[in-house]
Amino acid sequence: MSYEVRSLNEECGVFGIWGHPDATRVTYFGLHSLQHRGQEGAGIVSNDEGKLKGYRDLGLLSEVFKDERQLDQLTGQAAIGHVRYATAGNGSVDNIQPFLFKFYDGDFALAHNGNLTNAKTLRKDLEEEGAIFHSNSDTEILMHLIRKSAKPDFSSQLKEALNTVKGGFAYLMMTEDSMVAALDANGFRPLSIGQMVNGAYVVASETCALEVVGAEFLQDVNPGEVITINDQGLTVEKFTDETQHAICSMEYIYFARPDSNIAGVNVHSARKNMGRILSSEAPIEADMVVGVPNSSLSAASGYAEATGIPYEMGLVKNQYIARTFIQPTQELREQGVRMKLSAVRGVVEGKKVIMVDDSIVRGTTSRRIVELLKEAGAKEVHVRIASPPLRYPCFYGIDIQTRKELIAANHSIEEIRSEIGADSLAFLSEEGLIDAIGLKFDAPYSGLCMAYFNGDYPTPLYDYEEKYQESLREKISFF
Amino acid sequence: MSYEVRSLNEECGVFGIWGHPDATRVTYFGLHSLQHRGQEGAGIVSNDEGKLKGYRDLGLLSEVFKDERQLDQLTGQAAIGHVRYATAGNGSVDNIQPFLFKFYDGDFALAHNGNLTNAKTLRKDLEEEGAIFHSNSDTEILMHLIRKSAKPDFSSQLKEALNTVKGGFAYLMMTEDSMVAALDANGFRPLSIGQMVNGAYVVASETCALEVVGAEFLQDVNPGEVITINDQGLTVEKFTDETQHAICSMEYIYFARPDSNIAGVNVHSARKNMGRILSSEAPIEADMVVGVPNSSLSAASGYAEATGIPYEMGLVKNQYIARTFIQPTQELREQGVRMKLSAVRGVVEGKKVIMVDDSIVRGTTSRRIVELLKEAGAKEVHVRIASPPLRYPCFYGIDIQTRKELIAANHSIEEIRSEIGADSLAFLSEEGLIDAIGLKFDAPYSGLCMAYFNGDYPTPLYDYEEKYQESLREKISFF
Amino acid sequence: MSYEVRSLNEECGVFGIWGHPDATRVTYFGLHSLQHRGQEGAGIVSNDEGKLKGYRDLGLLSEVFKDERQLDQLTGQAAIGHVRYATAGNGSVDNIQPFLFKFYDGDFALAHNGNLTNAKTLRKDLEEEGAIFHSNSDTEILMHLIRKSAKPDFSSQLKEALNTVKGGFAYLMMTEDSMVAALDANGFRPLSIGQMVNGAYVVASETCALEVVGAEFLQDVNPGEVITINDQGLTVEKFTDETQHAICSMEYIYFARPDSNIAGVNVHSARKNMGRILSSEAPIEADMVVGVPNSSLSAASGYAEATGIPYEMGLVKNQYIARTFIQPTQELREQGVRMKLSAVRGVVEGKKVIMVDDSIVRGTTSRRIVELLKEAGAKEVHVRIASPPLRYPCFYGIDIQTRKELIAANHSIEEIRSEIGADSLAFLSEEGLIDAIGLKFDAPYSGLCMAYFNGDYPTPLYDYEEKYQESLREKISFF
Amino acid sequence: MSYEVRSLNEECGVFGIWGHPDATRVTYFGLHSLQHRGQEGAGIVSNDEGKLKGYRDLGLLSEVFKDERQLDQLTGQAAIGHVRYATAGNGSVDNIQPFLFKFYDGDFALAHNGNLTNAKTLRKDLEEEGAIFHSNSDTEILMHLIRKSAKPDFSSQLKEALNTVKGGFAYLMMTEDSMVAALDANGFRPLSIGQMVNGAYVVASETCALEVVGAEFLQDVNPGEVITINDQGLTVEKFTDETQHAICSMEYIYFARPDSNIAGVNVHSARKNMGRILSSEAPIEADMVVGVPNSSLSAASGYAEATGIPYEMGLVKNQYIARTFIQPTQELREQGVRMKLSAVRGVVEGKKVIMVDDSIVRGTTSRRIVELLKEAGAKEVHVRIASPPLRYPCFYGIDIQTRKELIAANHSIEEIRSEIGADSLAFLSEEGLIDAIGLKFDAPYSGLCMAYFNGDYPTPLYDYEEKYQESLREKISFF
Repeated sequence: MSYEVRSLNEECGVFGIWGHPDATRVTYFGLHSLQHRGQEGAGIVSNDEGKLKGYRDLGLLSEVFKDERQLDQLTGQAAIGHVRYATAGNGSVDNIQPFLFKFYDGDFALAHNGNLTNAKTLRKDLEEEGAIFHSNSDTEILMHLIRKSAKPDFSSQLKEALNTVKGGFAYLMMTEDSMVAALDANGFRPLSIGQMVNGAYVVASETCALEVVGAEFLQDVNPGEVITINDQGLTVEKFTDETQHAICSMEYIYFARPDSNIAGVNVHSARKNMGRILSSEAPIEADMVVGVPNSSLSAASGYAEATGIPYEMGLVKNQYIARTFIQPTQELREQGVRMKLSAVRGVVEGKKVIMVDDSIVRGTTSRRIVELLKEAGAKEVHVRIASPPLRYPCFYGIDIQTRKELIAANHSIEEIRSEIGADSLAFLSEEGLIDAIGLKFDAPYSGLCMAYFNGDYPTPLYDYEEKYQESLREKISFF
Repeated sequence: MSYEVRSLNEECGVFGIWGHPDATRVTYFGLHSLQHRGQEGAGIVSNDEGKLKGYRDLGLLSEVFKDERQLDQLTGQAAIGHVRYATAGNGSVDNIQPFLFKFYDGDFALAHNGNLTNAKTLRKDLEEEGAIFHSNSDTEILMHLIRKSAKPDFSSQLKEALNTVKGGFAYLMMTEDSMVAALDANGFRPLSIGQMVNGAYVVASETCALEVVGAEFLQDVNPGEVITINDQGLTVEKFTDETQHAICSMEYIYFARPDSNIAGVNVHSARKNMGRILSSEAPIEADMVVGVPNSSLSAASGYAEATGIPYEMGLVKNQYIARTFIQPTQELREQGVRMKLSAVRGVVEGKKVIMVDDSIVRGTTSRRIVELLKEAGAKEVHVRIASPPLRYPCFYGIDIQTRKELIAANHSIEEIRSEIGADSLAFLSEEGLIDAIGLKFDAPYSGLCMAYFNGDYPTPLYDYEEKYQESLREKISFF
Repeated sequence: MSYEVRSLNEECGVFGIWGHPDATRVTYFGLHSLQHRGQEGAGIVSNDEGKLKGYRDLGLLSEVFKDERQLDQLTGQAAIGHVRYATAGNGSVDNIQPFLFKFYDGDFALAHNGNLTNAKTLRKDLEEEGAIFHSNSDTEILMHLIRKSAKPDFSSQLKEALNTVKGGFAYLMMTEDSMVAALDANGFRPLSIGQMVNGAYVVASETCALEVVGAEFLQDVNPGEVITINDQGLTVEKFTDETQHAICSMEYIYFARPDSNIAGVNVHSARKNMGRILSSEAPIEADMVVGVPNSSLSAASGYAEATGIPYEMGLVKNQYIARTFIQPTQELREQGVRMKLSAVRGVVEGKKVIMVDDSIVRGTTSRRIVELLKEAGAKEVHVRIASPPLRYPCFYGIDIQTRKELIAANHSIEEIRSEIGADSLAFLSEEGLIDAIGLKFDAPYSGLCMAYFNGDYPTPLYDYEEKYQESLREKISFF
Repeated sequence: MSYEVRSLNEECGVFGIWGHPDATRVTYFGLHSLQHRGQEGAGIVSNDEGKLKGYRDLGLLSEVFKDERQLDQLTGQAAIGHVRYATAGNGSVDNIQPFLFKFYDGDFALAHNGNLTNAKTLRKDLEEEGAIFHSNSDTEILMHLIRKSAKPDFSSQLKEALNTVKGGFAYLMMTEDSMVAALDANGFRPLSIGQMVNGAYVVASETCALEVVGAEFLQDVNPGEVITINDQGLTVEKFTDETQHAICSMEYIYFARPDSNIAGVNVHSARKNMGRILSSEAPIEADMVVGVPNSSLSAASGYAEATGIPYEMGLVKNQYIARTFIQPTQELREQGVRMKLSAVRGVVEGKKVIMVDDSIVRGTTSRRIVELLKEAGAKEVHVRIASPPLRYPCFYGIDIQTRKELIAANHSIEEIRSEIGADSLAFLSEEGLIDAIGLKFDAPYSGLCMAYFNGDYPTPLYDYEEKYQESLREKISFF
């Protein structure tokens, strides 16, 4: 399982349904299975015969809708919902989606997963023309572009707007008579469509949400597509033909739930393959393989199975950690008081341990886990990372926008090993990752975005370009 | 990991510390690691130079102490705490422990894990003498017995009281100048003692709490022992010599955290052994082994490792389930909407699956999981239970006090198999379980209580005897 | 005292301060004294060296800022705040003010008391040009007009915008370097300026807020004025010269706190005068005068004092009523269970009572109070209303926008008397009201707006005209 | 109206009903009208065919029962309830009443208004015999005495217990088949009985609660009476014949609601009389009479009416003050920021003011109000107190148990006048108070307890005697 709050976060999950008498409730359960994609806030907008009604608030979905009556008010046969991930220091309900707009000529709702690379420029241009924004999020921009458009109908206005925004985006929209999904030209973020037994169409960021609501998978939304669902059915259009697949590889490595399929590839199986290939690229003799819960259990079991080294539960995570605001003081931490992860002395004492993790960002977490294992008596700890070193920021929807947070950006693997206190350290190769996932698209890296590893961005960076080039010239040290 | 809310629940966890400047905070973190033992309520009583202060409420520990100020008020160098498990329909704060008593001649606090078999009789006798009880729990009885005792000093009063109560109990008490732990004569419930670097003594229901607070394991509390900890150190006494080990086998099978050791045996390792032995007792050819998360992962990996059949993540549990009060309606459930567990189609489709679970109580959960796997395309589902069939109630602290809740009490294994829809079904043998745990005590079943499986209760049943005998004569059917 | 939740509600109160180290806290206390003007929600925006920070939520001020830390985050030397009155069924935080806008070229905050008569047209026009609104309130319109303006500087943009909006408005704004107050050309709503000992300027909807924060009254904001306060001091400009005084007479009758002065006239004294003049216009022999608490106590004491008839506490209001959501069922009401008001049997039994109230809207409340008094044994109940009959809606900020809610719109005084069950009924005359308040402005009705009584609206009704004319033709009956 | 939180507080209000299908809801509304007697906590216990169910919590009644479902669970045809007043620093739900006891031989609930003078001794004696108390309150003692009694039936046990406890008490009890009320031998606290239209009996601390639930007054509970209400009707017994009336005079002066009658005397009328007699005892020429809201409005209007001096609203109280936890800092207070009371400049400026208040405890509030009036421009402020100087503590249920809190205990009237900054100061005489209330009992002071004024306690002080004598010898100074 790969769904916990960490230093590496994605921006949001979306879910929508058209044609179900209990649309809001189905959306609730769909969003619930996407909670790992965002814990800051949640919202749902329903469509009751053309009238849109919404409710949103800060907190987990179960906190936002803690009372059944809040769901019951969102009547109608269609709904879209959103879970938003936690950014530091901006806990305003104004940013929680879906955004609901009430125009004299109709209602409109909008939810967004991703990040635009030309948002700052577009926002300034729009404000200079008199536009007023009510949130910090990029999401509102699309709404302004649509409303400013001189095109004669909504469909043309939307396509024009989608061609104006750049970067990574999966939009889910509700108009008075339709639900519309759109994906950027590179298909960075996953977005899938399913159908329930009663014929209702479902759109979701991950296929696990389709399973949870009992919907059958129909098709993925492809790069550059606009999909409109209404009472007449589903129609697929393209807003651009300059498309390619550059699916975010971090979805496979870390973000997505193991029971989701992305572009037809099961995430758990991909992770098991990463562990398997890692074990052949970086073999080591040891007494046991231990995965860092919860995100690295698949990779660890792949490593163990391929090598025959027993897979053991050498680390245990407290499942009640999520909502505890009380943390050990520095003094208590120094006395060894820990809350989140425990190393199992009875398992690791006196043993050579292979510790498998999915990735290393700053290295602080890895250092702490190695320390835990050693304090619990592990004789040796060999760290194996089931992805290549993270060296470059992401501008398409993952919350790493500076190289300063990435230990591998300026440090060698040996330096990292020394820093985290491991007896040995190895990463999966880029080729190994591509093989493990096994996409077959006719595109660079078989259809994956590998920019975090090699800096090869599939699009221009627009507003971020200058700062990015500057960061490449910086000398960053963590020590 | 084995710590979720289920139909099979234990009664409570306790934690205490003596001699630490931040005693309440350490107790908070200790209790936090015992949260799996009780989610209905929590409380802490601190000792500030002889003055006891307490706070308790309904809810998870993190809900009870959601504000750091509540902890800060519980000043002092010693503290005891308690987490209480959820019983149906009795959500009163009056039952949340530790109980804090203010007598004219001093303060006293009391926390309890277990169940007394002669509570009803004792309570009636005490009430007839004028005693007033303020809760439904058995726990208050000990306090009344101590206060009524004609013995000259607290130690003698306590021992007299401990010899009067019967059944399973692990008591943790705070007087003005000491912390006292006591365990029943059969040692049904686990209770361990550790020491922190600064010399502070720690008492906890499970050793995982010692690890979490950075304490080193010193010794288990043995059957019939009273352990007193004060500023002069630790002293061990016995309140009875008629003792034996009859450790609750369900602690190993299901309740305890995998990183805990009970009587020196690591729980994860014991579970792995159960899976391993189960695989030899009930082998089957299949494509994969799937564990039911979270409690059966250790047993499943043991099964897989012993057979060489790949261990796969065919079931995924939504980690945000715990506090969601909104559930699918019957109609949505029939449409396939599910919240808690998802079967991973990409993994199990077209495959022969061995599904490993720790136990079967009513059978309804097992039936639902088999169904899930089959709906996700599993070709065959072979259920393997890593413990013997549950056939008899427990009167020492586990929340099964009637045979009516136990499908195996009156149905054959073949009947159960048919009911849960599995292609085959097998349970671990009693011998297999005893071997897997591997205790070496000179006592029946090597020191385990096996009564749930074979009705061999290590003590008289007192107040429960009549009802129990009656239940044995009843003909119970689930179908 | 006149500050309770009733069927007659005003729209909001504003408070602002410039130049105080504890600006937010002073704003809190100022708003607290204006709580009677709005209980749906509250908010504060502070200005910390040009950076604006805001917090707002649904609920009473004390609920919105229940934690001191929420105030402490709003740092800075200036702040504006707003309390919003409760409208039925629109409990969205989106409508709670002040609105805070973050533009690429600076921050801006806006609070509003009043109602625009051309809002619908302006909003449609703006939306057709691409504007996006985020709330239902009229308030945003001003912001759009300012941002769309082609004028070269903020001051000119604001004046242009103020000349475009029509109706009743008292705006309070915060820019990065100033606080700006503006009042409509008819001065419908009160707005006053004061100064604290340290030199800080204070703006408030009522002078009671100046007193509460220890500020000395400086001047009222006059119709058509824009007042800018910054570090250089206070400057007064006019956005129009076509101004007159048409102060809302309901402020004197019902809304404002008795300790406020409006246009130099103390509200309590004005009400006492209303009671006094009413007693001479509609005298009656009786044993006692009873005021309906809390809003009619001043008028009742004026009536009593002028006639020499004793003023008695024949009605008692439960001061804890405000936040009780549990109400007697219909059955219990029929059994005489009442919560809000009690008639004092020991006072009224067997007596002839003059019951003084401030106004009659639907008549249902009056009927209930007469009934209460009679059930408590009053021999006769003579109702005296200290204002003329309400016959016409208000479009400038009071929540009566239809004649259907006004019993006097289509019923004679005798019909009303019969409906409410009084032994006699009389209203204050229009002349009596004007005399009682005693304004001396060179304007119709000495400077009062009397439209609710006589339909003489001081401005065109714009978007409301058509519906209003239609309502005049309707035949409305309450019986 | 006299019901606000002050430095002078009473201990609690009780309400009960027998024989109504909606007993709990009626109890809710009855308690709601007694909320002024206690704001710390509230609770209700219902009786559903012999099974007692309870709910209680800290907070106002409307906070404790904020959800209708909490009321709905308390089913049955009878109920008793309690509101508890706020004591500093002991906010534990354990002390909130009614206390609900579950014995093997039946359920029992107990609520209490008053204070026992021999509680400490009784508690120690009981604990020495093994009794365990669960709260700090005196209330539990009665329960222990009943259960310890050797008498053969409940009625005899109760009477024995009532003769053992000393001091002031109004008990309300619920057994499985009856509701029982009992009043101490001096009748310190009020307790009345009424009947609803359907025949249901109602017991309440004040008659205002009877009015509010539509019940007709039947009779007061007299000193030394035990009243039992069950399905057969109402029976009156006495537990002692040594009785007299010594009704708490502070009930008339300050505590009770003005619409209540105590011993047949209306509280508002008594207060008006106090003002009237005060005006003849201590006349002064002035421009107006101003009452301190809310508790002194009756007395002030009596003073005004008797003298012909106009009664004016020179002080306004913010009705939203109750639940505001944010208070002005010392610095803001010095700048004149005030929240609770405002003086009305437009009324008092340049005027000679008679300020009428009900009592003076420490004098700090009086000083602040005089200051407020002078800052608002009052030329002279003459303070008239509608009761004699408070010089002695109360041990029967009012929260003044030490002379240290009473400025009049050791200071002359001239010293107090100087301290509070008044131009003159006068108190009502003891005779004046007795006349104003006008009881006719054949007992000292016509049936009033006047101990706070003259130290003439109607009973021995038992556990308080020593400390009291000591306090008489202390030299206390406030300056």
